[in-house]
Amino acid sequence: MKLVNPKAEIFSQGEEIVSGQTVDTNAHWLSQELVPMGFDVVRHTTVGDRLDELAALLREISDRADCCICTGGLGPTGDDLTAEAVALAFDRGLVNDDEAMAQIKAHFTRMGREMPAINAKQALLPQGTIRLDNDWGTAPGFALQAGRCWFAFVPGVPYEMKNMFRERIKPIIARNFDSKPLRRVVLNSVGIGESNIQQRLQPVRFPEGVTLSFRSGAAQLQTKLLFEPDFPEADIRLLTNQVANAIGNPVFWIEGLGESTANLVGVIDRLMQQYQYRLAVVETLSGGNISARCAGQPWLRESLIKPDMVELVDRFGLNQPDEQEDASMVKSVTAIAELFQNEKDVECVIAQLWCGCEQALQDKTKTVRLYSALATPDGVFEYRAKIGGTAARKHTCAATVSLDSLRRYLSGLMNR
Amino acid sequence: MKLVNPKAEIFSQGEEIVSGQTVDTNAHWLSQELVPMGFDVVRHTTVGDRLDELAALLREISDRADCCICTGGLGPTGDDLTAEAVALAFDRGLVNDDEAMAQIKAHFTRMGREMPAINAKQALLPQGTIRLDNDWGTAPGFALQAGRCWFAFVPGVPYEMKNMFRERIKPIIARNFDSKPLRRVVLNSVGIGESNIQQRLQPVRFPEGVTLSFRSGAAQLQTKLLFEPDFPEADIRLLTNQVANAIGNPVFWIEGLGESTANLVGVIDRLMQQYQYRLAVVETLSGGNISARCAGQPWLRESLIKPDMVELVDRFGLNQPDEQEDASMVKSVTAIAELFQNEKDVECVIAQLWCGCEQALQDKTKTVRLYSALATPDGVFEYRAKIGGTAARKHTCAATVSLDSLRRYLSGLMNR
Repeated sequence: MKLVNPKAEIFSQGEEIVSGQTVDTNAHWLSQELVPMGFDVVRHTTVGDRLDELAALLREISDRADCCICTGGLGPTGDDLTAEAVALAFDRGLVNDDEAMAQIKAHFTRMGREMPAINAKQALLPQGTIRLDNDWGTAPGFALQAGRCWFAFVPGVPYEMKNMFRERIKPIIARNFDSKPLRRVVLNSVGIGESNIQQRLQPVRFPEGVTLSFRSGAAQLQTKLLFEPDFPEADIRLLTNQVANAIGNPVFWIEGLGESTANLVGVIDRLMQQYQYRLAVVETLSGGNISARCAGQPWLRESLIKPDMVELVDRFGLNQPDEQEDASMVKSVTAIAELFQNEKDVECVIAQLWCGCEQALQDKTKTVRLYSALATPDGVFEYRAKIGGTAARKHTCAATVSLDSLRRYLSGLMNR
Repeated sequence: MKLVNPKAEIFSQGEEIVSGQTVDTNAHWLSQELVPMGFDVVRHTTVGDRLDELAALLREISDRADCCICTGGLGPTGDDLTAEAVALAFDRGLVNDDEAMAQIKAHFTRMGREMPAINAKQALLPQGTIRLDNDWGTAPGFALQAGRCWFAFVPGVPYEMKNMFRERIKPIIARNFDSKPLRRVVLNSVGIGESNIQQRLQPVRFPEGVTLSFRSGAAQLQTKLLFEPDFPEADIRLLTNQVANAIGNPVFWIEGLGESTANLVGVIDRLMQQYQYRLAVVETLSGGNISARCAGQPWLRESLIKPDMVELVDRFGLNQPDEQEDASMVKSVTAIAELFQNEKDVECVIAQLWCGCEQALQDKTKTVRLYSALATPDGVFEYRAKIGGTAARKHTCAATVSLDSLRRYLSGLMNR
């Protein structure tokens, strides 16, 4: 399969990247955006804070690529050299952009501060560029055609870069390039591993023109289908359904069939709002990660975080469970969920207990056992998981596992 | 300021990197190795599986760098093109290396398998190169001088790459390059912006041979000093102290003077253990982020997360504060911190209240006001901050601001 699509490069300015202090995740993210848009991404380059290196590289790219997205070097300090490098590389002056200056000043006014003199530099743009307004930070970006290549420059802060790409660059690219987009469909799942999914997918026949890949995070896994341009829509939906059915309940969200993107909490949010349910949480192993991931959601009414099991069980006036007995742990966590449901007068409660010593928690080669209970208007459900990895991974995974039990219940997937 | 150290580049061959399927962590790792060895790492480049691109890039590098570490493209399949690209770029033939072939066969024998015919390709090395034996996988690497640059080629599998670098490449580099290591000192701070730090640093005189740079995160900022080789240790400590004093209380951790690395919670952990204090937390604006960041710390005894202020104030039996009056809000949050301190029988309590409507929380152009109180054995301290940005940033920054008040108290920086 050969695509006759425009050549793109990604270029990062960052001394902290070449000197090994930061991993450049921007280039990775931008590739994931550009490839499905039909670009042939041929090179990633990162250089440090050196004016001559930067200018030389920009000239090279202007000879060989059709499109280049450049991140970083737009800050206010002396080592932010991008605008100057563009001016040098393509023999243009730097001019003060009044509108950019007004935006930078407004940004500081919103933050309740005066603009420091040093930030005036960020309004200096190379002559003959288009300004890319930055609604997500201080520094505007800019774009220009130089030689064969259309360049867009955006800040290196990932949050600003991503918004600038989606809102400012993508629309221009869509107008200026005749690229045939690939279609990407992503099946997001929780609580199932890659080899397990691969086994479940064995009966599915993947036709020519589809690429299957996986990407895994903490207790979450993405199954990605990349379809060639002009792959029939009906066939995309048919294959996606086959894959979703083969994987089963772990799939909580399918991206790329027209619905907006969401994460696990986004899916739960939609369902909680639909049913007008409220949630209270008793966290132990997840240590605050459930609450932090739901921060700002109006349906999360209260959380109690008490890592010490003896204290927690006492708090609810229960007898201490036998850690060696699954049934005893399940009984305790179920009782806690029900008691907290009554006490807080909410429809849903997530409660957790866990087994394993402090040492097992810290040791990444050891697993701990999570007992999670979900109190609902339809009764209490329990959910168990063995969780391994670093302590940080155990905390995060415990949150994902407990949250997913709520997602399954709300989606009507729980056996009642 | 000009560094007299050899210029190094890192080059990766990987279609899966430029197409966005994998993040290139090898370049990051190699930079972290090369910089302290005294190399000036000037560029990272990644290209896909294209023979002409690869050969062109190798020629470019041979003109401008002194040393280049290249990863990937040494596998047995058709898209592994590195040896071929070297042969093309520097006009050398490919020759079969008998010893390499014997090693590849031995590798398969150890695995209890016959060598597949396809792997014979991995014994073909460009003429005039030195073989780098691979005791950790199948494919040997190789090294050669071309033009100005000494090139070393190793597999892209991180485990093999790292071992090959340590055991094969480092000893050669140590013999061939007269590189002198740089020293890096990093001052980590909370609750102060880059332009503010720059202003505070204006009276500090930076001598020749020091480079100053910054890196910012959510409510945190790193001030970095890079010292040339042979910069006197006493002068490094003197300048670091001047910079730390100029920035003042916001500095919570200095890396690079011999102590191990830490983050804000790491610093707090050390002090909490030293004083044998315990903490309880009442989170509102940070919505669980304080607890999540302290997850697993034995001194965090309990957290209560209750976003609704009316409910929270009721929970403590207090009168509702006047949101328009700073003094009224401070009085309430201070009272909550003290009441929770008594109730939970702990030395320290962090409590929060915040002002601003739900809409201001969600609107990234609006700020909200955080009132944070810290109850301690020495009384209650209060801390106010205006916090802007996305809802997610507001939650995170609120956690950082409240945690930093604890850090300042424990460090003896709070006015008593």
